[in-house]
Formats: sequence, structure tokens, C-alpha cells
Amino acid sequence: MAAVITLTTDFGLGDVYVAAMKGVILSINPAASLVDITHSIRPQDFRQAAFILNEAYPCFPDRTIHVAVVDPGVGTARRAIILRTPRADFVAPDNGILSYILRDYNVADTDNRTRLAPESGLHAVAITEPRFWRSPVSATFHGRDIFAPVAAHLSLGVPLCDFGEVLDSLAVFPVPVPRCDAGGMLRGTILHIDTFGNLISNIKERDLPAGAPISVTVGGETIPGLSRTYGAGGGLLALIGSSGRLEIALRDGSAASRLRVQIGDEVSVGNEIK
Amino acid sequence: MAAVITLTTDFGLGDVYVAAMKGVILSINPAASLVDITHSIRPQDFRQAAFILNEAYPCFPDRTIHVAVVDPGVGTARRAIILRTPRADFVAPDNGILSYILRDYNVADTDNRTRLAPESGLHAVAITEPRFWRSPVSATFHGRDIFAPVAAHLSLGVPLCDFGEVLDSLAVFPVPVPRCDAGGMLRGTILHIDTFGNLISNIKERDLPAGAPISVTVGGETIPGLSRTYGAGGGLLALIGSSGRLEIALRDGSAASRLRVQIGDEVSVGNEIK
Amino acid sequence: MAAVITLTTDFGLGDVYVAAMKGVILSINPAASLVDITHSIRPQDFRQAAFILNEAYPCFPDRTIHVAVVDPGVGTARRAIILRTPRADFVAPDNGILSYILRDYNVADTDNRTRLAPESGLHAVAITEPRFWRSPVSATFHGRDIFAPVAAHLSLGVPLCDFGEVLDSLAVFPVPVPRCDAGGMLRGTILHIDTFGNLISNIKERDLPAGAPISVTVGGETIPGLSRTYGAGGGLLALIGSSGRLEIALRDGSAASRLRVQIGDEVSVGNEIK
Repeated sequence: MAAVITLTTDFGLGDVYVAAMKGVILSINPAASLVDITHSIRPQDFRQAAFILNEAYPCFPDRTIHVAVVDPGVGTARRAIILRTPRADFVAPDNGILSYILRDYNVADTDNRTRLAPESGLHAVAITEPRFWRSPVSATFHGRDIFAPVAAHLSLGVPLCDFGEVLDSLAVFPVPVPRCDAGGMLRGTILHIDTFGNLISNIKERDLPAGAPISVTVGGETIPGLSRTYGAGGGLLALIGSSGRLEIALRDGSAASRLRVQIGDEVSVGNEIK
Repeated sequence: MAAVITLTTDFGLGDVYVAAMKGVILSINPAASLVDITHSIRPQDFRQAAFILNEAYPCFPDRTIHVAVVDPGVGTARRAIILRTPRADFVAPDNGILSYILRDYNVADTDNRTRLAPESGLHAVAITEPRFWRSPVSATFHGRDIFAPVAAHLSLGVPLCDFGEVLDSLAVFPVPVPRCDAGGMLRGTILHIDTFGNLISNIKERDLPAGAPISVTVGGETIPGLSRTYGAGGGLLALIGSSGRLEIALRDGSAASRLRVQIGDEVSVGNEIK
Repeated sequence: MAAVITLTTDFGLGDVYVAAMKGVILSINPAASLVDITHSIRPQDFRQAAFILNEAYPCFPDRTIHVAVVDPGVGTARRAIILRTPRADFVAPDNGILSYILRDYNVADTDNRTRLAPESGLHAVAITEPRFWRSPVSATFHGRDIFAPVAAHLSLGVPLCDFGEVLDSLAVFPVPVPRCDAGGMLRGTILHIDTFGNLISNIKERDLPAGAPISVTVGGETIPGLSRTYGAGGGLLALIGSSGRLEIALRDGSAASRLRVQIGDEVSVGNEIK
């Protein structure tokens, strides 16, 4: 079966770890089509992985299997899970790395866990059945010994419930939500800084006031109006980026370096002052 | 159809952009065989991309589809194009990124545009037909929304002319040509510095004086004679590299760092002084 | 034939070299499944490549073809070879890059060469038959012109002996072996530093004294006891890593930076002092 399996890790490309996972998958399903999302997640930064994975997966074919291994808790009691959504399957540690994806299904958050409502169309299992694992299992490399072989067996059509017990909730971290303050300003957060230094926020196009001209403030600078492309005008630009999010860019440069902004910093949107 | 589709971009490997393009292609043609040429083109440096693409494409199977997205003008009026050559198809912005490839077909240059002579065997179309695009099209990521889906449909056998109107000229930049000066010196240009710091010039083996021993001058140093391999002798070497071009290397080091030479600098070849 | 072919080189990902090899392979066997092990081997460091390749290959399907091109002697008299083991085929320069793999078959070492004993199950040939090469062969890029096309033809089922004469010995470098000193200390060597800065030694789990608690000394620091995971405790940890080797890690940091240890440095194991 020519299933697509993607990989997202913090393993880098300079070592054996990514290749080991691919070798294990191809040993079980030689016809799997392997695609790297990225292996340059900052070490152990499952929040960054969560963002990247959520941006990437809608571009892939239906029923793609996405393996995400950014796993500070490897070898501890943290669970390994499979999440099935109407679009795709995710094989990952239960550490919040699927938070953005879960949020899009509007399921309720409580205490860093999200309950999978029956009407959500989501299904999850704990990966507990060792017959789908590589043996012996290393305590430090579940990517190779658990996540990769489970994804490969999943791609061969093994039913979800064969991998372990059904779960009714998964770990999430609080995804920052933009909010309007008393003065009518929309206050959001920088979620991601891309490789070009563009600042990507949690404010989506639909969150912006319709019609009225806006100005965007971030890192102490205010940018009047929205541009349509990176090539428009000079200097700092605010625009709706390719992910549908409000983004701040610097023409021919890095907005992140210029503004010294970091992930988690605030970006605010108000009416444009004429 | 097991078409090969290659990707050349300046997106880096640390973000979602490359994976997004691959996901889009596989969604349309699940059997496409995807190969990265490189994603480490310096941001917006379409000249570097043009060089790399021209070196890479002759190694690929006939009828490979090469997608090149180094696109400072994304979202502006610059055209998106498909070029069909006797060997391959190229899907790219019309910004000169195909200049070296077009040159090899000896078509005439005028005012930064190359006319596609009927006898050249070249065919080009503007990508204007939206039914082959992802919808909606982001103004900032035509790689995902136009170039990737067009390449995928092309790989499924959609005829060239279905994608848009036929073009009779394409944008090019002036490719530096080596020339002989009055004193009989051959004067060329460094086109590329590879990852090892080797300096790759626009002088091809056939440009060199046949038979006579030569010396090569670059960055203020003169290298006597041509070596056959990187392992020959010590210090700086001049040799005909794997692309058939005169190349300057430093044994166990970087010629670029040693000579402080940059792309565009001159390299000259004269008779060896005994 | 859907053979898996892996690539291990020092070419980096920023240039045309890796793509050129892939294009050549797909031109000969369009159905080959290409997997990168890594292209970030330190330039010309065939010892590092030897380690990585030996860690990676057991994860791949039986009869995978592994191409390893870290080749300081390209263009010189060094041989190009194919090694067939019971598990896999290796296509590489005869410069020691297969040393770890050969060692696992317990064949005898003499003078930097390993004899392939008939009972070892190993077979090797020199790559001397030009009809399987790209033509003309560059003196500087045998990866593209010899190793890649030979691997592709091998993947199509060309018999081993068609590529050249049978060899009865191959080049190796001395692989460091742990030893016990007079005081009962087990003295090993750091073979590899991974991308996280973990120090990976040549001491395997089976080399450790069974039962007794141990302490590990490296870079002037002594670490009491073995941890099971990277998440255990704080500070420096000694553990059996995913490759079955004694490994030194720093929780949330780089053990290599903290200890200023390099490849080749000593690590010693003694009884834990209470």
C-alpha cells in the first residue's frame, strides 16, 4: 500500500536517527512513501513541532500518517498515542504535540487535557501492544522502536484498536487565543518565527475587523496597513501570510532580528491612525 | 505515473514550506517520485538557483519535471511559467532562473529576454489557468499554491497548452561569458562557490588552449598547471571539475576562504610561465 | 524493482552533488527507493561515516544497497568496491569506511586490511567494469559517475561478479576496542558525538560488569550509576543508548560542550564508590 508517512522530529539531519526510523518503516512497509516535514525542531520544543505539524498536515493527502517525535519524556511514564482525525492519523507522544490539531476540532480543554467528544470525529488509542514494536525497545529511542514501526503497521491497515486501549482524552498545552481589550485593540501572540525571520501570529484573517484600515504594533513599532505581498513597499510589512495568519515581515531582511521579537511576544491590531 | 519531480528552493529545511509543496504534489499525483535538489539557495538568489539547477538537471531521467521556486517577485506581476526542453520540463517564476538552461539552446538574448526560436525545440507557456491551482491562492506562497499543483498535474500528462498561453520569450539575466583579452589571456568569472569552498568558473574545458601548459590566476595568486584530482599535490589546485568547468580548490581546505574570492570575481588563464 | 538504496556522504545539502547522484540512480532504476542516511559527515571523515553507516544499516530491509561516498582519495589509485554481507550490499571506496561492519563479522585484521574468510559469508569485488559507469568519468566525482550508477545496476539484479574482480581483503582502520587495565577499570573510547552532544563510546552493554553498580569517568568527571533515560535525574548521565553502547548525556544540554570531550578521548568504567 502506497501510504504516505511524514516525519517531524528534533533529530537534525547530521546523525543516524532519522535514517533509522525510515529504515524501520521500510522494513515493515516497503511501499510507504516517506516525506520529511522537518527534523530541525529546536531540541525538545514540542510546542514548535505542534505549530509546524498543524501548518503542514492539511497539505497532505487524506489518510496520511504523520509521525511526530519531539519527546522530552522518552522512557518515562508519558504515553505514546495514535490520534485519528477525519483527515489523517498522528503517531506521537502524548505531550501536547497535537494541541493545535485538537483545537481545530473544538473539543473542550480541561487541566491540560482535551476530552475527545464522541461528536468530534476524533479517535485515539494508547500505544501499548508490544507486538507492533521493535524488540528490544530502547529506553531512549522510541522514534525507532515504537513510533516508526507502529506507523508502518498502521499504514498496512492494522485497525486502530489493535495498538492499545481507547483513550477519551489527550494532553494539550494552552494554545494562545487572541482577545480584544477594553480599548478595542486586538491582542495576539507571536506563535512562530520562520526561517526567513517572519513573525507568524495567532491572529487569523477572520479575527481582523472587516473593512476598516488597521495598524499592527509589535516589538515597539507600529506598521500602518496590510500589505498583500513581501515585495510591497520597503521596510516592515504586515500581511496575511500563507497560513492565513497575520504575519510581520521585513523586505529583504529578518523581521525577528530587526524587532528583536521572540515567540510568545505580543502583537496588537488597532484602527489605523490617519 | 511514476514521474520524477525535483524541487529547488530557498526555503531551508527548518520550516513547513518544503513539506507543504510535497504534500500538495502527492495529493494530486500520489505516485510522483520527489527529489530535493537543494533548499539552501541563499534567500532570493535566483542566480545561484539557476546555476545549481543547470548542473543538476542533466543527471535526471528524461522528462523529469523540475520545480524551482526562488521568487522575490511572488505576488507581483512577474509571470509563472513552464518551459519544455527536449530533455525536461521546468516549472518556475519567469525571473531568469532558467537562464543557463536557455543559453545551452543557443537562443538569442535581447534586453534581458530570450526569444524561443521555433528551431530551438523549446516551448513555454504562462501559467494562467487557475483550475490547476490550489484555491485560494496565497499572495506569498505560490510554491505551494501554483508551482506545486501545476507540476503535479503536468506529471499526470496534462498538455502544456492547457496551463496557459504560449510564450515566445522568457526572462534571462546576462550569463557571464569568458573572453580573450588583447594579450591572449582568457578571462572568466567565478559563477559558484560550492559547499567545500571550491571556486567554479564559467570557463569550460573546451575554452582552454589545447595542448599548451597553462597557469590560472585568481584572487591574486597564480596556480601553475592543471591537476587531475583534489588529492594531487598540496595547496591550491586548478582542475577541470565534475561539471566540466575550470575549478580552483584547496587541498584539505576552502579555496574561497583562503583566497577571499567571491562570486563574480575574475579568474584568468594564460600560458604557464616556466 | 523497488530496491532501497541509501546514501551517506560528506557533500552537504547545499549543493548539487547529492541530487546528481539521485538523478543518476533514478535514470537507471526509476523504481529505486532512495533514503538519505546523512550528508553531513565532516568533510573527508570516513571514520565518522563508518560509525554512522554501521549504526544505520541494521534498521533497513534485508538486501538494501548502501552507498557511502566519503572519499578523500577520489581520482587516485584507491579502489572502488562492493561488499556483500548476509544482510546488505555496500558500494564505497576501499578506504576503511566499512571497518565497523567488517568487524562485526569477526574477520581477521592485518596491516590495515581485513581478509574475507570464506566462512564469513562476505563477498567483495573491485568496481572495474566501465560499462556500468557514467561516461565520461570525472576524476573528482565518482559518487555521480561510478558509485551511483553501480548501485543502480546492482539494484536491477546485475550479479556481483559482473562489476569486477573478486577481492579477498578490504581496507580497514583499527577500530578501538575497550580493555580492562590492571586495576580492573574498563577503559574505552568516545567513538561519536551525536547532534545532541551525547558522547557515544565503544563500550557495549555486554562489556559492563554484570550486577555490580558502576561509575563512569570521562573528561575529568565521574558519574555514579547508570540511568535508564535522558529524563532521569539532572546533570550528567551515563546510560546505555539506543545503539546498545555506553553513552554520556547532559539533561537539557550538550555533554560534549560541558565536558569538552572529543572523539578519541577516553571513558572509563569502574565499580561505584559508595
